[in-house]
Amino acid sequence: MTDLWSDLLACLDLRPADGDSEFEGANQRLGYHRLFGGQLLGQFVRAATLASPDKAVKSVHALFARAGRPDEPVRYEVSRHHEGGTFATLGIIARQSPGVMATASVSMHAVEDGPDHQTPFHVPAVPGEEYSVDLDLLPWDTRAASALDTPKSETPEYELWMRTPAVGPELAPALTAYATDLSLIGTALRQVEGIGQHDANTVFTSAVTAHTVRFHRPFRTDAWLLLRQHSPLVAHGRCYGRGDVLTEGGSLVASYAQEALLRFT
Amino acid sequence: MTDLWSDLLACLDLRPADGDSEFEGANQRLGYHRLFGGQLLGQFVRAATLASPDKAVKSVHALFARAGRPDEPVRYEVSRHHEGGTFATLGIIARQSPGVMATASVSMHAVEDGPDHQTPFHVPAVPGEEYSVDLDLLPWDTRAASALDTPKSETPEYELWMRTPAVGPELAPALTAYATDLSLIGTALRQVEGIGQHDANTVFTSAVTAHTVRFHRPFRTDAWLLLRQHSPLVAHGRCYGRGDVLTEGGSLVASYAQEALLRFT
Repeated sequence: MTDLWSDLLACLDLRPADGDSEFEGANQRLGYHRLFGGQLLGQFVRAATLASPDKAVKSVHALFARAGRPDEPVRYEVSRHHEGGTFATLGIIARQSPGVMATASVSMHAVEDGPDHQTPFHVPAVPGEEYSVDLDLLPWDTRAASALDTPKSETPEYELWMRTPAVGPELAPALTAYATDLSLIGTALRQVEGIGQHDANTVFTSAVTAHTVRFHRPFRTDAWLLLRQHSPLVAHGRCYGRGDVLTEGGSLVASYAQEALLRFT
Repeated sequence: MTDLWSDLLACLDLRPADGDSEFEGANQRLGYHRLFGGQLLGQFVRAATLASPDKAVKSVHALFARAGRPDEPVRYEVSRHHEGGTFATLGIIARQSPGVMATASVSMHAVEDGPDHQTPFHVPAVPGEEYSVDLDLLPWDTRAASALDTPKSETPEYELWMRTPAVGPELAPALTAYATDLSLIGTALRQVEGIGQHDANTVFTSAVTAHTVRFHRPFRTDAWLLLRQHSPLVAHGRCYGRGDVLTEGGSLVASYAQEALLRFT
């Protein structure tokens, strides 16, 4: 567990490869034949922050074009489509030797204040330690009151609590982007009788095609966060889902959405 | 009304400017000093369809970098980051002489079938003609049972029914993308007491910064569609909202989300 955590932190520590426009990221050592999309999402967020350090990432939209190879570092090439005093618009290409592996569009905004109005979100209490779940790729405390994998057809909703080890707020967007990539396909599969996330690569093949994360407010990941997910649709060889990230106090700090290939074999 | 409709159809009929990678689009004649983002969203969808005609647009994510000028056509430059037999990943730059005006990431997918599972959405009956509303930029039947502009603080939710004149399904994604850009900021303002959409440019300034539309299924716009919106957050000089597009029968055909600058003066 500690290894995966320090390995992930090392992956989020991108190396400048060419001034402030190209960066290189190491890959997670997962012993898997392709890269986890969450790694790329986290690295896209970090590349944008390094390229435009005086602004915060407000949204990152990634398209995954090719499976990534774990044996080759990923190169992130940043294009500044527009950069003003308050806003910036970046395009980022993630490349390996076979070509473009993924792309991201990033909207950035300088810190700005103003009136605050939020519709209330009901947030339950954090479930006790007996509700701990093991989600493999998330190397920190995770708890859930319901199961991601269900034998019968259930509502395709899933609530996941998470809290990372102590870490500064500057890594919160990247770590949260990483975490949001993991369980929306499983959430969609809750509504499919007899099939669940554990049937990956046997009963179905899946691959995320597009993923968006929007950051609404500054926040920390070493306090409890609730990922509240709904994946209403499985159709046309695809699935779709989305989620909100809420603090224990009900503050909406981020939202996300994902499309994936979901082909039953 | 008919004029704005035929004008919009003409704008969606892009002209090839350089083979299958560059296109040019005319602008709506709105007598306004900047372009409506919905026009650009619709044109991005059309440019992607022209560039990759054997696949359907599954999602378009647009970043708006600069206000568009109505006196100069928009040039759309398509980059194919990846194009396989089933999927394609496109980047599109919308340019005018001052530079990049907007960018889009487009995920495309060939027509594919497979098992269909959808969580139920409750859809009310279409409101009668007495609930017709005039939303200026939407040149077709629109109905709503509640008001977009409210003097008191209300729940930031809004349900808009719409039905275009007779038009083929090939234009449904572009027309729907166009329509989704219009009323999320107003929906967010429903929760702000004493301020509504009609206070634009006096009490507040606003500009859409990022907008995503995801298309889940083939559909038509000349049958009734329900745009169900929720804009939970106004904070940090911004607002955020999202919506679903549902048929009368409760079929989820598209989803969307938007971030915007919302600065109170």
